[in-house]
Amino acid sequence: LARLLSVIEDGSGASAAVARLTYRTTPPYVVGLTGPPGAGKSTLVDQLVSLARQGWPGAPDEPARPVDAIGVLAVDPSSPMSGGAFLADRVRMQRHADDEGVFIRSMATRGHLGGLSRAVPDAVRALGAAGIGLVVIETVGVGQIEVEVAAAADTTIVVVNPGWGDSLQAAKAGLLEVADIFVVNKADRPGASEAATDLSQMLALNPPDGWTPPIVETVGVSGEGIDTLLEEVARHRRYLEDTGSLAARRADRARHELERVVAARLDERFFEVVASARFAEAVQSLAAGTSDPYEMAEQLIARS
Amino acid sequence: LARLLSVIEDGSGASAAVARLTYRTTPPYVVGLTGPPGAGKSTLVDQLVSLARQGWPGAPDEPARPVDAIGVLAVDPSSPMSGGAFLADRVRMQRHADDEGVFIRSMATRGHLGGLSRAVPDAVRALGAAGIGLVVIETVGVGQIEVEVAAAADTTIVVVNPGWGDSLQAAKAGLLEVADIFVVNKADRPGASEAATDLSQMLALNPPDGWTPPIVETVGVSGEGIDTLLEEVARHRRYLEDTGSLAARRADRARHELERVVAARLDERFFEVVASARFAEAVQSLAAGTSDPYEMAEQLIARS
Repeated sequence: LARLLSVIEDGSGASAAVARLTYRTTPPYVVGLTGPPGAGKSTLVDQLVSLARQGWPGAPDEPARPVDAIGVLAVDPSSPMSGGAFLADRVRMQRHADDEGVFIRSMATRGHLGGLSRAVPDAVRALGAAGIGLVVIETVGVGQIEVEVAAAADTTIVVVNPGWGDSLQAAKAGLLEVADIFVVNKADRPGASEAATDLSQMLALNPPDGWTPPIVETVGVSGEGIDTLLEEVARHRRYLEDTGSLAARRADRARHELERVVAARLDERFFEVVASARFAEAVQSLAAGTSDPYEMAEQLIARS
Repeated sequence: LARLLSVIEDGSGASAAVARLTYRTTPPYVVGLTGPPGAGKSTLVDQLVSLARQGWPGAPDEPARPVDAIGVLAVDPSSPMSGGAFLADRVRMQRHADDEGVFIRSMATRGHLGGLSRAVPDAVRALGAAGIGLVVIETVGVGQIEVEVAAAADTTIVVVNPGWGDSLQAAKAGLLEVADIFVVNKADRPGASEAATDLSQMLALNPPDGWTPPIVETVGVSGEGIDTLLEEVARHRRYLEDTGSLAARRADRARHELERVVAARLDERFFEVVASARFAEAVQSLAAGTSDPYEMAEQLIARS
């Protein structure tokens, strides 16, 4: 699985590798977790994973049940290669060293926007094919990244800290758009209830259709509030399932993904065409004024 | 010809229209003329066209001979539709009303960069197919536009005025890159010789390989210096022919054009694919986790 994810991260051979996967009929449930640097996301994810292993609420009317395997994808959009993330991996590996059911992987997205949206769906599919039922995607939320995480996730958790209310209104608007659940982490610090109130007021001013994001206060280092957070994730999942939104979200996501793959394949075809010997011949006849670029383009594309 | 150019300008039906053309074996010679607003480009073009009609120097060793037909494409990259350019057309039409051999056309490029590079090669081909041997492309040179004009032209004339030396160094560097001939127009005004000296010094600091752009002083309204300008165009043409650069430039231009047409055709194919019923089915099976996006993309592209 680790080697497969490396191929996916690298991108070059991903299509062949993924094509060889046998798909599970049920894709994993994907929880996205995003927020500013230093918000305590990694600690929260670790706590969430530990608790979910004991009892992750499944489908509605099912009792809570242990999760066989959980995958964590820590996506670092800022570093071109996973320098810092590597260290974090090793620390976490130790924490979950006795836990064979947790697969943790950091993914670098090579510093370019869109890297996340390219590699993550394949990685989630690979985790699903390996029998993993719950995937947590953790990333630093900075502008567009938040939207990409939300696009890849079934439930998106946005983590803020006490004092966050001092940040820009623009950033707040972006968070409102993507959050299914708000977490005020480090809630033992001064200003936690003010931050929660600030979020409530934002939500009251911009009332969402259907689901109203709950606001959960947590203390990552002690584990306080993690049970509530997990319950809210389960409640959101049930909401999505009951209203048919889960299927709609996933169809939407599949559509975007397939569009991306088609576009990427057509890009490749472009480079195949212009590198071909027939293209060079066509250029000569176009320069001489003896042929038509549109007809030639059709022929070049058809025969490539 | 006017209707054909409208189709080309519009873009939507261009490929079919152009494909129906019978090409001349010898493409027209293309002179690009660019410069800042108010530099007197239109007047210069009119004078140049009138003079060229009397005797445009042809191939080397050939005597100067009258040009049967000259085409003028006035490209307006700033206006989405040709409002202002229309008026200019009518003024010019009157000036050349007795001259059946001059075809003047303004082209709007819909305000988007790249519009010029898309429509101009087709328009030049259409003019060539109509028997026009010399095409002058006139446009306001603003940043990237200059480069696009130069890419479409065999000889690029950059027009400046006395006092231009006060403009930005960055703009100068851009002009140096594209100019085959510099014109200091309105040379009867104070500062003309200073502008010419300024250009000479720029050229001395950045000596070009091979061809050194001459600096011609003109007075567009009186026609002064136009004969020298036309001779310099002819001299540059001979230089390109003698050194084999004309063929190389045109091959390069044909390559870029064919690349653009191939890319545009693949873009169209993308939209055909994602609008198809088979795409919608593929999305459903991808969302259900029962199929592979890469294999599906291949099949969708192949059958579209």
